[in-house]
Amino acid sequence: MRAVSTPPTASDAAPARRDAEATKAAILRSARYLLARHAHTDITLKDVAERAGVSPPLILKYFGNKDALFARVMSFEADAEALLDAPLPELGRHMVRHVLESQSERGADPLLRIAFAPLHGEQGDILRANFRTQVTELLADRLTGPDTGLRAELAVGTLLGLGVMYGIARGPHLRASAIEDIVDRYGPLVQAQLTP
Amino acid sequence: MRAVSTPPTASDAAPARRDAEATKAAILRSARYLLARHAHTDITLKDVAERAGVSPPLILKYFGNKDALFARVMSFEADAEALLDAPLPELGRHMVRHVLESQSERGADPLLRIAFAPLHGEQGDILRANFRTQVTELLADRLTGPDTGLRAELAVGTLLGLGVMYGIARGPHLRASAIEDIVDRYGPLVQAQLTP
Repeated sequence: MRAVSTPPTASDAAPARRDAEATKAAILRSARYLLARHAHTDITLKDVAERAGVSPPLILKYFGNKDALFARVMSFEADAEALLDAPLPELGRHMVRHVLESQSERGADPLLRIAFAPLHGEQGDILRANFRTQVTELLADRLTGPDTGLRAELAVGTLLGLGVMYGIARGPHLRASAIEDIVDRYGPLVQAQLTP
Repeated sequence: MRAVSTPPTASDAAPARRDAEATKAAILRSARYLLARHAHTDITLKDVAERAGVSPPLILKYFGNKDALFARVMSFEADAEALLDAPLPELGRHMVRHVLESQSERGADPLLRIAFAPLHGEQGDILRANFRTQVTELLADRLTGPDTGLRAELAVGTLLGLGVMYGIARGPHLRASAIEDIVDRYGPLVQAQLTP
């Protein structure tokens, strides 16, 4: 439900909890869209609500206030927690599986928002800084041996590329493959950076 | 000079040929920016020229006409030619080096435009179709053994991720490393898909 950047799949439609998640996702998508095009201070809750097709009070109900909503859009914390939730020897395969399941089941990707970070301006810088401290440095801290920072960046790079290929380039072979087949092929590439 | 998607580096400034290349790059950047936000038919040469800070006749001089300019923006052909220009046993290392040199020397990336392909609408579809036929299928045709299509997509995926990490997330460890060090580390991951 976080980091939605590819079209949602059919599995989005269903009961009340799902509806709430879909609404939250629409609000986050709207905030992300506007933040990619306007300065933070120029965006109102009403703008976000209009684009998401909801009422401003609903945004307050789900996210508290505008700053909390924008902080949520800018943060990778919750995504990184799920992404990194495996023992180190299994982490490469887990991360590949997590990216593919997020993409195929929710049309989301835990990391891919960084690919849309504006190259200039404060928003891109905040996003990049968050990505660094909340994803790559967090992963680097779990590694041992030399060059942990570089190895973490390369491992995360492989995952970003998988997300781009699946969700944006939409590689037909990748999308037609069983997730576990890709985990078998791609997991070792990621793991090679984690435990060389 | 093609596929500029990250800020140019100091090496951009210099004599006449470089100036022409820089101007062409600015025109392509401008066209790409506008195409990501407006329908093809709504964009005029004047719009592209204004954003690039050049005159419309200069665009005609360099690119012929609007359709030729937009086709150039949408095509990966010239980029793929340089990217794939190595014998298969060396190709993984060559492609990693080519991505890193393009990024570090020209602030460009041969493939990364696909990461900004709009998810909806004709322009994104054309870009994705071109990427498939001009990059991944071209690479797949050079591979032997089973699952050449999937292996090509995964190999290209690793390169896309390297480009995102270098040019957009701007991983500080990656950017501080010697290119040949990254070629040594990352080349084998790419090669593992090409000649498993």
